[in-house]
Amino acid sequence: MSVNTFGRLLRFTTWGESHGPALGAVVDGCPPGLELSAEAIQPFLDARRPGQSKFTTQRQEPDAVQLLSGVFEGRTTGTPISLLIANVDQRSKDYSDVAKAYRPGHADYAYDAKYGFRDYRGGGRSSARETAARVAAGAVARLVIPEVAILGYVAEIGGDVIDPAHFDAAEIGRNPFFCPDAKAAQRWEKIVDAARLAGSSVGAVAECVASGVPAGWGAPIYGKLDADLAAAMMGINAVKGVEIGDGFAAARLTGEGNADPMRPGNDAPVFTANHAGGIAGGISTGQPVVVRVAFKPTSSILTPVETIDRDGQAAEIRTKGRHDPCVGIRGVPVVEAMMALVLADHKLLHRGQCG
Amino acid sequence: MSVNTFGRLLRFTTWGESHGPALGAVVDGCPPGLELSAEAIQPFLDARRPGQSKFTTQRQEPDAVQLLSGVFEGRTTGTPISLLIANVDQRSKDYSDVAKAYRPGHADYAYDAKYGFRDYRGGGRSSARETAARVAAGAVARLVIPEVAILGYVAEIGGDVIDPAHFDAAEIGRNPFFCPDAKAAQRWEKIVDAARLAGSSVGAVAECVASGVPAGWGAPIYGKLDADLAAAMMGINAVKGVEIGDGFAAARLTGEGNADPMRPGNDAPVFTANHAGGIAGGISTGQPVVVRVAFKPTSSILTPVETIDRDGQAAEIRTKGRHDPCVGIRGVPVVEAMMALVLADHKLLHRGQCG
Amino acid sequence: MSVNTFGRLLRFTTWGESHGPALGAVVDGCPPGLELSAEAIQPFLDARRPGQSKFTTQRQEPDAVQLLSGVFEGRTTGTPISLLIANVDQRSKDYSDVAKAYRPGHADYAYDAKYGFRDYRGGGRSSARETAARVAAGAVARLVIPEVAILGYVAEIGGDVIDPAHFDAAEIGRNPFFCPDAKAAQRWEKIVDAARLAGSSVGAVAECVASGVPAGWGAPIYGKLDADLAAAMMGINAVKGVEIGDGFAAARLTGEGNADPMRPGNDAPVFTANHAGGIAGGISTGQPVVVRVAFKPTSSILTPVETIDRDGQAAEIRTKGRHDPCVGIRGVPVVEAMMALVLADHKLLHRGQCG
Amino acid sequence: MSVNTFGRLLRFTTWGESHGPALGAVVDGCPPGLELSAEAIQPFLDARRPGQSKFTTQRQEPDAVQLLSGVFEGRTTGTPISLLIANVDQRSKDYSDVAKAYRPGHADYAYDAKYGFRDYRGGGRSSARETAARVAAGAVARLVIPEVAILGYVAEIGGDVIDPAHFDAAEIGRNPFFCPDAKAAQRWEKIVDAARLAGSSVGAVAECVASGVPAGWGAPIYGKLDADLAAAMMGINAVKGVEIGDGFAAARLTGEGNADPMRPGNDAPVFTANHAGGIAGGISTGQPVVVRVAFKPTSSILTPVETIDRDGQAAEIRTKGRHDPCVGIRGVPVVEAMMALVLADHKLLHRGQCG
Repeated sequence: MSVNTFGRLLRFTTWGESHGPALGAVVDGCPPGLELSAEAIQPFLDARRPGQSKFTTQRQEPDAVQLLSGVFEGRTTGTPISLLIANVDQRSKDYSDVAKAYRPGHADYAYDAKYGFRDYRGGGRSSARETAARVAAGAVARLVIPEVAILGYVAEIGGDVIDPAHFDAAEIGRNPFFCPDAKAAQRWEKIVDAARLAGSSVGAVAECVASGVPAGWGAPIYGKLDADLAAAMMGINAVKGVEIGDGFAAARLTGEGNADPMRPGNDAPVFTANHAGGIAGGISTGQPVVVRVAFKPTSSILTPVETIDRDGQAAEIRTKGRHDPCVGIRGVPVVEAMMALVLADHKLLHRGQCG
Repeated sequence: MSVNTFGRLLRFTTWGESHGPALGAVVDGCPPGLELSAEAIQPFLDARRPGQSKFTTQRQEPDAVQLLSGVFEGRTTGTPISLLIANVDQRSKDYSDVAKAYRPGHADYAYDAKYGFRDYRGGGRSSARETAARVAAGAVARLVIPEVAILGYVAEIGGDVIDPAHFDAAEIGRNPFFCPDAKAAQRWEKIVDAARLAGSSVGAVAECVASGVPAGWGAPIYGKLDADLAAAMMGINAVKGVEIGDGFAAARLTGEGNADPMRPGNDAPVFTANHAGGIAGGISTGQPVVVRVAFKPTSSILTPVETIDRDGQAAEIRTKGRHDPCVGIRGVPVVEAMMALVLADHKLLHRGQCG
Repeated sequence: MSVNTFGRLLRFTTWGESHGPALGAVVDGCPPGLELSAEAIQPFLDARRPGQSKFTTQRQEPDAVQLLSGVFEGRTTGTPISLLIANVDQRSKDYSDVAKAYRPGHADYAYDAKYGFRDYRGGGRSSARETAARVAAGAVARLVIPEVAILGYVAEIGGDVIDPAHFDAAEIGRNPFFCPDAKAAQRWEKIVDAARLAGSSVGAVAECVASGVPAGWGAPIYGKLDADLAAAMMGINAVKGVEIGDGFAAARLTGEGNADPMRPGNDAPVFTANHAGGIAGGISTGQPVVVRVAFKPTSSILTPVETIDRDGQAAEIRTKGRHDPCVGIRGVPVVEAMMALVLADHKLLHRGQCG
Repeated sequence: MSVNTFGRLLRFTTWGESHGPALGAVVDGCPPGLELSAEAIQPFLDARRPGQSKFTTQRQEPDAVQLLSGVFEGRTTGTPISLLIANVDQRSKDYSDVAKAYRPGHADYAYDAKYGFRDYRGGGRSSARETAARVAAGAVARLVIPEVAILGYVAEIGGDVIDPAHFDAAEIGRNPFFCPDAKAAQRWEKIVDAARLAGSSVGAVAECVASGVPAGWGAPIYGKLDADLAAAMMGINAVKGVEIGDGFAAARLTGEGNADPMRPGNDAPVFTANHAGGIAGGISTGQPVVVRVAFKPTSSILTPVETIDRDGQAAEIRTKGRHDPCVGIRGVPVVEAMMALVLADHKLLHRGQCG
């Protein structure tokens, strides 16, 4: 119920604003005895960290995580794990424009409508900086599901799609786009750089595949694995669509074309297709869990956009300063983190109910 | 946390299986003093009811709802509202095939993997009959949000899309497809009938627009209006994708193309576009809330599909008997119900926190 | 969050009013594969059933439970278990007094203050008839914890306390008071009968001991086993106090006197005392879990009491008709049920987090 | 569900151990626009702070609270409020005794049984230092209910009870016992000092009265105001009993003696008694909400107690070092905080459902 908390048995609560002193996450319900240290969390934060290429925001944040509780002698104790990330590069800036007028596509107007006022510095709580806390929490969740391998990547930028024939997982870490297709990465360099130079932005589609998920995780009817994944992904900043398996493409198939036939296997059945994305009836089938996530283009653009100010008067706004020309790129570590958090939660839930 | 419960302040819990004596919903947290009767709920159930045309399953269920609690002298008392729908047409049938072998695309295998066994009669708990309970609960939710008008319809069947230029809301009730485009309805008649006669099935895309939602409903960060809608919709049987506003199409736009500029209005700002689908930062903006939902083709088909049986041996299965050739059609009243339930819940949540 | 739902992983939701057509409970999260039938639940309802002696209300209710879902071929499926109990003896009565004036000690005024109006027939939702639903749910919970034996009894009526030296568990079922002390039962017969004849009422203290609870159930800090038990018991109609172990008496001991020393044992340590009531730091210690619960005297009495009516005018009210002269007596099966529900829930929670 | 989170709409999550770098609370769901600063929270922490007299532990902790998020320009923004309190006086000490053997009455054995190991330094997570985080959260909750005045005090120490005739609220702040009876305070000085010098400890009973609570807060059946208060209080370290209003004494009254008659009043009815402690049917009546809480004597005593070590072998333990001879004294600010948190939560819940 807590609106800043996600999860059922393994839960995390995040707090903090873009320009406050720090942000953080409290992870509760973690099984005891897992090896955990700040060093083990840091690489995941580093993957999400801004300022690492010209294709992301130039804000410089070390995003060094502190582990304040829940670990003793290097292992989780089963009590809350408090993770804190200091904000370092809150550049002193003139926020008077943003304080007064609403940036279309941002949460400015909605926050004011809801709360009566807002922390306008860098987007306050609605800033994508909050996702650093999720990534830290996700690193904890990964420890809970050592049987699962999670692979996230960008599949499309600005409408330019990767070629499945060129898919190479090893490529993902070799370019600034989390792109598994080396040729696509080259094309995207031009696309994203052009957007950056024009003060514009482009959208992206991320995919995430979790292998090793055993059959049986998930819980009908309102705790379905796919429903929880949908909420997890749709709640990421700038996300506007979520697909499980074939997603919208499934709506264009016939029942025959969409079937995932099964054959006898050794430990588990062998499926000859995975249109379902590894989930049936809200429960994992043992196939890879596949999610696709649509990120809109960054709303912060240099082109002036018609808007209104706090007094309801006509205004125009252009967003100067640091921003990601394609917010979907840095979304990949966040998508992976949310995948880990949902799966870890459902592993514990399943164990709780079914032993 | 309860996996068969949905919602935060306005919550409903459903129960029941396809071939049990009854199914139902308990709605908790409803504001007191609202006029409610079984008669007021029935039309929504009738819209979802099977057996009304040759394009849906021929199972004959009156789906007559009984109101067992929570109403006194015609008004809600603020205590739990228990809604019960008897199962009438549980045709005595030979379920030995389904009992033994897993129907691909269905939850059969996943349920067995999770629970060790399953109620195989008509899909048991995983049957889409469960959605009758949601529709009944949704009728209650509508009373909580009289300021909101909800319009659901099918936008695409078997890849055939409606023409926005022919959109006529009045048309939706005039054909068996909830189709707002009279010409598309004629084409769909052929598509769905062909699938029916072939023992095949087709997918569909439903859309749902909620008008009148004021700015300020929703709650960052893990109680976002769009995240809750995504979970609500993805949890409907056969759904594989959810979009808010432009959804995946937004990923192909530039920041300029995706902007929703604002102008001064009378009571509220006027937006000159609604790419965002009425939600920014997880909070409603006052624009219509727009959701798109992808339904896969019904998994029950006459064509034999390779599968395994409960002992892991190779088998083949074809699903005889009554089923919807396009399960997305009857999904429309369910999508509307879930929209109503999410919005009503967030109205109360917003009132709770912000007064 | 759902206010008519109790529990975390094993949860139940109750619904229904005293004079509606029925009441019931939906139990969610139950492990699959447990043998369950209406017949197995009925004895617990029978123990709580009214009208069985002159010492309880004369309302005649068979309290026959129907099992509407969640069980297939005699075993729980892991899906929601819907339990329904029809109301039979809603005697047609003149409720005009109660409709107009508030009965002190009852929830009449509070319900009106909260909801603006109320179902005044027999107390509506605030009637102790609701506890039948809990008892039915508790019967399910018992199946989840076969290792635990739960023993509830009345330890005190009208200030007259049982003699621990005369404690005989076999005696509890032999008298109409759930009294483990045969001599006390004789004295209580006079006390309760006198109250009954005078149209008065007396209070009671119930105790409940759960043996066989292994060490490790419970969860610090806000899911403590004792805190959940306190909520469970305090939420029973007419309860005004809850103690764990020595309770208030512990506040009068020194640290030495309150210690529960431990010695080596075979499978588990041997404690030489149990002042703590089997719980330390919110977690079970392996000793018997001991709870004491104070029931106020029934508020329904024949003596006229000063009150006000719905218009705020002075009035006087005396409660005619059927009522329990000592509501604590029939509270015993309810206390046992809540104990079972809390323990079963925590067993699953522990298994979820700690495996 | 999160076991380290308390509340429904206004929720707080605490984290941290006695000897970690810090502890804290995240308060979620707070209404926006309330004036809040670290300075406003500090006095409540100071009241609970150790080391202020010889009657409490000599650990020296400034308990200076940092406000890390959720406040902008001095007002709450409606987003999570992160409160952090650094641990300063984690005296380097030899914990080898406690690491090896279980202190009876403490959570040592239970934590090991649950989690497999534990942070033994100063009790780790089970330390009463955690209550500092609750007190900080409670200070936020008080802002939500300006209409309510909360008065907590100690009513009994070591079996010595205050004299209601000498009750003087102004006296509470004038002695180190939160005692409203000057003469009792003098007697307690001797009692507590004797216990301290003997390395022993005594128990206490705290009372807490909330005035100004309007009728209508609370929510039947499993979100009752008294049930939530019972959980809140029973979850405080060392608490073994909770009473609402007359509590166990009510079990010794007749229905006539326990009645709270009502008379017409100006804005609200006048009650001529308050046996019910301001709550009927789980809903506030408008009378003062009265809770009594039993604290056991501190389990840390110098007298050696029989116990076992981690290997199950016989051992003996005496708790040297700093501890409160009467832990109930410093419990008063914690009881007040929990009262504030429960009431604030129910105010929002009521507003959410009933407008």
